[in-house]
Amino acid sequence: MDEFSFIDSIKPDSYRQSSLIKGIDDDAAVFRQNTRDIVTAVDTMVDGVHFSREAMEPYYIGYRALAANISDLAAMGAEPVFFMVSIVIPSDWEEQELREVYRGMNSLGDEYRMDMIGGDTVSGKEFVISITVFGYVERNKARYRTAALPGDILFVTGTLGDSRAGLECMKKNINNEYLIKRHCEPTPRVTFAEQLSSLKRVALNDVSDGIASEGNEVARASCVDLHITYDSIPYHSSVAELFPDQYQGWFLSGGEDFELLGAVSEHEWLEVQQKAEDINLTVTKIGYVSDATEGKGLVYLTKDGQTERLEKSGYTHLQEGRD
Amino acid sequence: MDEFSFIDSIKPDSYRQSSLIKGIDDDAAVFRQNTRDIVTAVDTMVDGVHFSREAMEPYYIGYRALAANISDLAAMGAEPVFFMVSIVIPSDWEEQELREVYRGMNSLGDEYRMDMIGGDTVSGKEFVISITVFGYVERNKARYRTAALPGDILFVTGTLGDSRAGLECMKKNINNEYLIKRHCEPTPRVTFAEQLSSLKRVALNDVSDGIASEGNEVARASCVDLHITYDSIPYHSSVAELFPDQYQGWFLSGGEDFELLGAVSEHEWLEVQQKAEDINLTVTKIGYVSDATEGKGLVYLTKDGQTERLEKSGYTHLQEGRD
Repeated sequence: MDEFSFIDSIKPDSYRQSSLIKGIDDDAAVFRQNTRDIVTAVDTMVDGVHFSREAMEPYYIGYRALAANISDLAAMGAEPVFFMVSIVIPSDWEEQELREVYRGMNSLGDEYRMDMIGGDTVSGKEFVISITVFGYVERNKARYRTAALPGDILFVTGTLGDSRAGLECMKKNINNEYLIKRHCEPTPRVTFAEQLSSLKRVALNDVSDGIASEGNEVARASCVDLHITYDSIPYHSSVAELFPDQYQGWFLSGGEDFELLGAVSEHEWLEVQQKAEDINLTVTKIGYVSDATEGKGLVYLTKDGQTERLEKSGYTHLQEGRD
Repeated sequence: MDEFSFIDSIKPDSYRQSSLIKGIDDDAAVFRQNTRDIVTAVDTMVDGVHFSREAMEPYYIGYRALAANISDLAAMGAEPVFFMVSIVIPSDWEEQELREVYRGMNSLGDEYRMDMIGGDTVSGKEFVISITVFGYVERNKARYRTAALPGDILFVTGTLGDSRAGLECMKKNINNEYLIKRHCEPTPRVTFAEQLSSLKRVALNDVSDGIASEGNEVARASCVDLHITYDSIPYHSSVAELFPDQYQGWFLSGGEDFELLGAVSEHEWLEVQQKAEDINLTVTKIGYVSDATEGKGLVYLTKDGQTERLEKSGYTHLQEGRD
């Protein structure tokens, strides 16, 4: 592969964001933002760990990698604007496959009018894709996981466990289009999070590792206890039908649904529901928030009348990064 | 290794940049910058390609990786402020080694009062470190490689080929402290680039792949020809002494010196020299800029009275990214 011609081929022809001053083509990109706050995160995926080249088409490898990053922006209430892509390319990857990875990213990026403003392309033995995203949010309107308060309603968007079930469908050649799409082309909840900008306060966290993990993050960060009612956790009927023995675990720790976990005051909960309805998104109350009883915030799960602590366990492949 | 305790251990205790609103500890970082432009770049290094774990102590792996990124900011005239680190960790890396990688990064980051504001830590078979850096620059003062004009003086900071020679010293157990330090702890030319902020116009590019490569980038971007006089290229005496058969090639294509290549008008050249002198940095005129004679910008090298085109060749390991 000729790296220069490849790099030339993936460069955007033009840029859409008016705040961009210099995109690709210099030592660094330059942009200007004097009215809103800037939000940024990085997320890295490795072949054989976060996806498998054998099982997933390159287009979706790119799509999912960017979706995971955009989901972090959504969880901050930010509008996605830019991304940079760093890839490590093994010698047995064809140029055509790489183009497909970029096509997948651009397909999702285009939906948000995002510009690719930089990156790095290096050789190595193992395919790695690392994306840095940038978003803008109204000043002092970033949504933090520290914002949950006792008395809040705890809610989640969409249905949980779909992505994990979709992966299983692919592995077992089960032809469930909905679930496979949920795994390969997850929808970051950007629009929903933007809709919530009128709320006075809402805590948001993206569900990339399952609510067991992210629930504990919110509880710890806000220093509150979360109480989740097991029966209220939303799931898609086909998940239960296809995987009756596994689906219940996947609610809690099936990763990469990229839904949002949130906490909001009872009097703003109605508005959250209306905003979700406006964009045809389901949002489900799964519990409530209380004072932390043991000095630090914990998560409790109530099932069949019994309440137990829900540890930050489950789906982990060392991917629990710092964003 | 317990990834959670490791991640906790590398989190900064506090932040220094007042423009930072939220660092690590949420889905993304948040900052605000309403007077200056924001500059960002990403650079990725792979074990066995850009460095060798066997040959280089982990501290320096971290140091160099951040230095390479900061050099991109310097080449834009920007002040470094933040960085995010994404690492792929093979199972045979010890926690202590990883801590050393971060200690190396923080050591350099501390010099510039940079804050680490995010990252990702994932497992994989091959060690990869990918850093995203952020800097600020006065509005409309970013220094582009497109800014060279016919009649400009072409200059370079420091001496070229040192890093490549330092690598060779390490491989051959030659105890040249200066050269090994130049390889392991390169100094990005941030201070110098900041000093140049008073100039009306200067084109800057960092020399990460050798002046053959970066010269061609400037020539193409500015659509001018560069004329380099071979005998004027600055090198360190010990490089010529130790490697008499190789040093001449290393000027042109020895990578990772992280010096700056620049072009400036003749009447501002004196100021460039004075600014360099103020901070005890050598800056050397290596040629001049003329109109592009063949439609696109090219680089010409004059040696022993003969002038030849200098291709964008030399040191390349597919690392010629887009920044």
